Amino acid sequence: MKSYHINMGAGLEGLVMREQDVPVPGSREVLVRVRACSLNSRELLILLLGYYPLPVRPDVIPVSDGAGEVVAIGEGVKRVKVGDRVAGVVFPRWIDGPFQAEVADQLGGSLDGVLTEYALLSEDGVVPIPDHLSFEEAAALPCAALTAWNALTGGMGLQVGDSVLTLGSGGVSLFALQLAKIAGARVIATTSSAEKVERLKALGADYVINYRTTPDWHLAVRELTGGRGVDHVVEVGGPGTIVKSISATRISGEIAVIGSVTRDNTDDRGIHRAVFMGTATLRGISLGNRAQFLAMNRAIAANGLKPVIDRVFPFAEAKAAYQYYSEVQPFGKVIISLS
Amino acid sequence: MKSYHINMGAGLEGLVMREQDVPVPGSREVLVRVRACSLNSRELLILLLGYYPLPVRPDVIPVSDGAGEVVAIGEGVKRVKVGDRVAGVVFPRWIDGPFQAEVADQLGGSLDGVLTEYALLSEDGVVPIPDHLSFEEAAALPCAALTAWNALTGGMGLQVGDSVLTLGSGGVSLFALQLAKIAGARVIATTSSAEKVERLKALGADYVINYRTTPDWHLAVRELTGGRGVDHVVEVGGPGTIVKSISATRISGEIAVIGSVTRDNTDDRGIHRAVFMGTATLRGISLGNRAQFLAMNRAIAANGLKPVIDRVFPFAEAKAAYQYYSEVQPFGKVIISLS
Amino acid sequence: MKSYHINMGAGLEGLVMREQDVPVPGSREVLVRVRACSLNSRELLILLLGYYPLPVRPDVIPVSDGAGEVVAIGEGVKRVKVGDRVAGVVFPRWIDGPFQAEVADQLGGSLDGVLTEYALLSEDGVVPIPDHLSFEEAAALPCAALTAWNALTGGMGLQVGDSVLTLGSGGVSLFALQLAKIAGARVIATTSSAEKVERLKALGADYVINYRTTPDWHLAVRELTGGRGVDHVVEVGGPGTIVKSISATRISGEIAVIGSVTRDNTDDRGIHRAVFMGTATLRGISLGNRAQFLAMNRAIAANGLKPVIDRVFPFAEAKAAYQYYSEVQPFGKVIISLS
Amino acid sequence: MKSYHINMGAGLEGLVMREQDVPVPGSREVLVRVRACSLNSRELLILLLGYYPLPVRPDVIPVSDGAGEVVAIGEGVKRVKVGDRVAGVVFPRWIDGPFQAEVADQLGGSLDGVLTEYALLSEDGVVPIPDHLSFEEAAALPCAALTAWNALTGGMGLQVGDSVLTLGSGGVSLFALQLAKIAGARVIATTSSAEKVERLKALGADYVINYRTTPDWHLAVRELTGGRGVDHVVEVGGPGTIVKSISATRISGEIAVIGSVTRDNTDDRGIHRAVFMGTATLRGISLGNRAQFLAMNRAIAANGLKPVIDRVFPFAEAKAAYQYYSEVQPFGKVIISLS
Repeated sequence: MKSYHINMGAGLEGLVMREQDVPVPGSREVLVRVRACSLNSRELLILLLGYYPLPVRPDVIPVSDGAGEVVAIGEGVKRVKVGDRVAGVVFPRWIDGPFQAEVADQLGGSLDGVLTEYALLSEDGVVPIPDHLSFEEAAALPCAALTAWNALTGGMGLQVGDSVLTLGSGGVSLFALQLAKIAGARVIATTSSAEKVERLKALGADYVINYRTTPDWHLAVRELTGGRGVDHVVEVGGPGTIVKSISATRISGEIAVIGSVTRDNTDDRGIHRAVFMGTATLRGISLGNRAQFLAMNRAIAANGLKPVIDRVFPFAEAKAAYQYYSEVQPFGKVIISLS
Repeated sequence: MKSYHINMGAGLEGLVMREQDVPVPGSREVLVRVRACSLNSRELLILLLGYYPLPVRPDVIPVSDGAGEVVAIGEGVKRVKVGDRVAGVVFPRWIDGPFQAEVADQLGGSLDGVLTEYALLSEDGVVPIPDHLSFEEAAALPCAALTAWNALTGGMGLQVGDSVLTLGSGGVSLFALQLAKIAGARVIATTSSAEKVERLKALGADYVINYRTTPDWHLAVRELTGGRGVDHVVEVGGPGTIVKSISATRISGEIAVIGSVTRDNTDDRGIHRAVFMGTATLRGISLGNRAQFLAMNRAIAANGLKPVIDRVFPFAEAKAAYQYYSEVQPFGKVIISLS
Repeated sequence: MKSYHINMGAGLEGLVMREQDVPVPGSREVLVRVRACSLNSRELLILLLGYYPLPVRPDVIPVSDGAGEVVAIGEGVKRVKVGDRVAGVVFPRWIDGPFQAEVADQLGGSLDGVLTEYALLSEDGVVPIPDHLSFEEAAALPCAALTAWNALTGGMGLQVGDSVLTLGSGGVSLFALQLAKIAGARVIATTSSAEKVERLKALGADYVINYRTTPDWHLAVRELTGGRGVDHVVEVGGPGTIVKSISATRISGEIAVIGSVTRDNTDDRGIHRAVFMGTATLRGISLGNRAQFLAMNRAIAANGLKPVIDRVFPFAEAKAAYQYYSEVQPFGKVIISLS
Repeated sequence: MKSYHINMGAGLEGLVMREQDVPVPGSREVLVRVRACSLNSRELLILLLGYYPLPVRPDVIPVSDGAGEVVAIGEGVKRVKVGDRVAGVVFPRWIDGPFQAEVADQLGGSLDGVLTEYALLSEDGVVPIPDHLSFEEAAALPCAALTAWNALTGGMGLQVGDSVLTLGSGGVSLFALQLAKIAGARVIATTSSAEKVERLKALGADYVINYRTTPDWHLAVRELTGGRGVDHVVEVGGPGTIVKSISATRISGEIAVIGSVTRDNTDDRGIHRAVFMGTATLRGISLGNRAQFLAMNRAIAANGLKPVIDRVFPFAEAKAAYQYYSEVQPFGKVIISLS
């Protein structure tokens, strides 16, 4: 079988394909014929920037997000059977409950990822995917959708009728918008582009604010919510937006803090004051657990949600996929297909 | 102004209209020009059966559910102003948090109700109603919709993608179906009538089971959920259905116990065993609080939910409304209009 | 190594000891030198009554509760190391979150138990034990203490100052009393024996009611709580006590339903009415998960809680231990020691 | 009756006593003979610094915290009767549930406070006090203890066995230490004084860190928790300590953000990064609601907790009390007695 391998910070040239034997699943392991992968900012951080908060094994198979078909199972496997369509779980040992250090092993980090023809995963490390999704669409879910799901449901659970603020058009934000809409929420989205205003509305956003033309977008959010502020913010902006995000939130509301590509922290003054004065809750999150993935898939299946895909590259052109993903701001996921 | 008055168990003839002075709102009180009321089984229990678990004041103005317009406010009122469209809160002192004995005062029970041209309510005892609802539609909410809302969101909160079982076509069940659908849930409903199958589907039910032709409807529910059982049951059936309802529920799922018109308890054997074996949760509920009413109204407004109305009677024909409500099984609410 | 083996319903004579090879831990498995076991009613149900709600493998090594020392670990084990003092987790696949069918494998049921010199357990299937506990004391925890912990903390979490009702002096009830006391709760216990009144008070019970001399003990509980009722009941009585237990509970309080040795359900009428009228919550529980076991052990360690032990039998006399346990009503756990 | 009156920022000389008529309670109001008050930093902010985040009425009776005896009740009062020993609720309209703008009326701010012989309070604005507390001790509770209680129980509720970090010896911190101990938690406290180390240990602190001699106290906290970090931080330090507090917290743990006397926000860089990297939750809080006050009092009563009092001044010397409180760092509450 063919697999890509990388080393931390190796750069695009460090993404190399190699041939190796197809592994045999051991006790409670499953072998998955990967059919599609998707890229997240973590892949760029690891390969291009050489910085990632979790350990990355030398010569690891990269990419955390993938979907495929179970082609073999090891002894004692009960949760899936050969032929099942599954996605990988990015933190395969994080079954349920809050995140903990001891479940921090991650696909495409300390564990081999899914940019490979066959992935050997633990039984707990895969979840069935909704019937109405193609492998390309299912491969879009593991990081971005699950992060959005955790942001919306993992703390003060989103309730039908709540209002949600999403920032921009990245993977997590688009899923947050779509998931919030199927849950009956009102969604206010921000963007810097007039063209994306329409695309966000087409996805269901109730209001879209152009933060270039409305730099005080947090005040606009307050106005749109009758002065009350939103119930939830899916905060992907980081130090540059967090204080405004808190100001856009109702008293006792929640801001899910998802980090930001930038490592710049020079601009986050005023957070303490904003949290205290707004009696707001900031909740740092890191993806989600297996149980949340299962619940999210039920929600996606029940409501026919379709992930947004920006572009699909073939497996042989993984390098081009990385390059594209690093150069444009895609609207939707960038997929690598092995079909 | 004209008001109806009743005494516990007085029978239909005991529903009498009288003229009295329009009251003047005191500190933190508001005067509401009632525009519509709706009937619930509590009205039949009180007037016709002469049994109700909470105290009913002699010569009380009956009916718990109503909506209208604020026409005067007393000193210190901050939450509403003259002209606001509001609904009454059935337990006006139950502001938030769990139910307690000390907030058990109830409109149309220990407090005067809303079958009157003008109702004097406490500031906390009214909530704004969604713009898209008529007074008739808003008057449908206080008991039935709020009970359904509490059933779905008050314990293990309903999550998008969850499955919900509703029983029959009573007021609570129809609202539970509609609210669950705007929240992105799958709904399985039961009915005994082929005609209602279609009406329930038209309201959004994903599946409808005719429990006459399928007496083992709990097994059908399991099958429809892939063997897993539903996440939530809105249990209005009482002793005759509760054990089957538990059997239709997934392990660790929740059954909201809403009581039943019948006082017969001879048939509830096996509940203990069912709860233990199913590791299920039974949660007894009694309407909901003011904060839940506000949240529900946000959900109804955000999703344009329209209550189902069976028939509207004029104020002068309140007696006919009671009679109709006691004789038929309406599909939707029975309304008394004062417009 | 020596192990006992049984078959469902085989009776005391069916408890046979055999010699076999010490197993070698595979991937993510650990080998534990068992130092002590404890008996629970499940052991009597399985061996003597031949009834148990979960599957029991033919010729299984019995007993769910044990503690010992890790003597070997397999590949990939991260959570424990050789030399660690651990207890087994009765549902080793139930990591966190609510109970589900797919984690129902149980030690001494579908999986080999701990009445053996060496037990082969999964890495997730063991938890470190508090330093201040002997192996005998730690062996008392897995079923009884964890059930009590889940009863108190798994639903409406026990809060300091809450009141708790425990019934009788079985294993779960004694742990519930002790755990509630270290959590700062008030505890009302019941018993049928004047002598046990003193022993329960010595363990910290604030009040003890003799239910023989006070058959309306639920009214006594109400009185002791100023008419309000207790916040939590740890309901081990079953059909014969459940309705009174609900009546002893405050509005919106919680009753943890733990089942009962008796399979008799003839006496559980009135539950529906009691739940509805009391707006009470009945929560069926089945032990607890690994995360709860870890949290409980932190609580036990922080507060120096010592399990109550009734009597200790040597490994060679396991049969006598079973017999004793089946004939008396021990005050505290019955232990089988392998030290 | 005699009352003190102030204006925002008037300075110590602006604290003037006046004679006025004893008010008569209206509907649902109670008249309380105040027996003791206590001072909080809010009093200094309002009188001396002239800054407070909530409105302060001109010529208001100052001081939010007081306890006394009900001497008269108005019409419709059900929750208390003449002779009851009560404390005032600082936000009398905040009954239960999360904080909201519409319940922000505050004693000694937009409403008259308790530095007066008789206070007119709403029925919901008083709670019974534990029998074992003197009026001086009960007057210590409303702000400081309730803030500590909300910090510990209002978000991720404190569980027996959890670990709690408290900072310094202010009113909130001492109550947090005492409340955490009666709840069975481990407490790590910090201080800058060797003498206070002993006093904190005497109150039950398991460990005390001198942050002058151990400037990297967050690392010391990690070490004391086996590398894991504490479950809860009661963060009163503000911008100068918040990042270290987050670093001292376990993954998925919670930091209650209580504000700080200083308005300086120059030092809060790095909060965003700390929240994200630690997957921590920051929860801004502002006192607590009436329901929490009732629950706290049950906890205090059940466990005989005694507030720490630093010094008691007579009513006539209120100015001296303010001065003392502004000049020293008391260990325990500063009380003004009217007995």
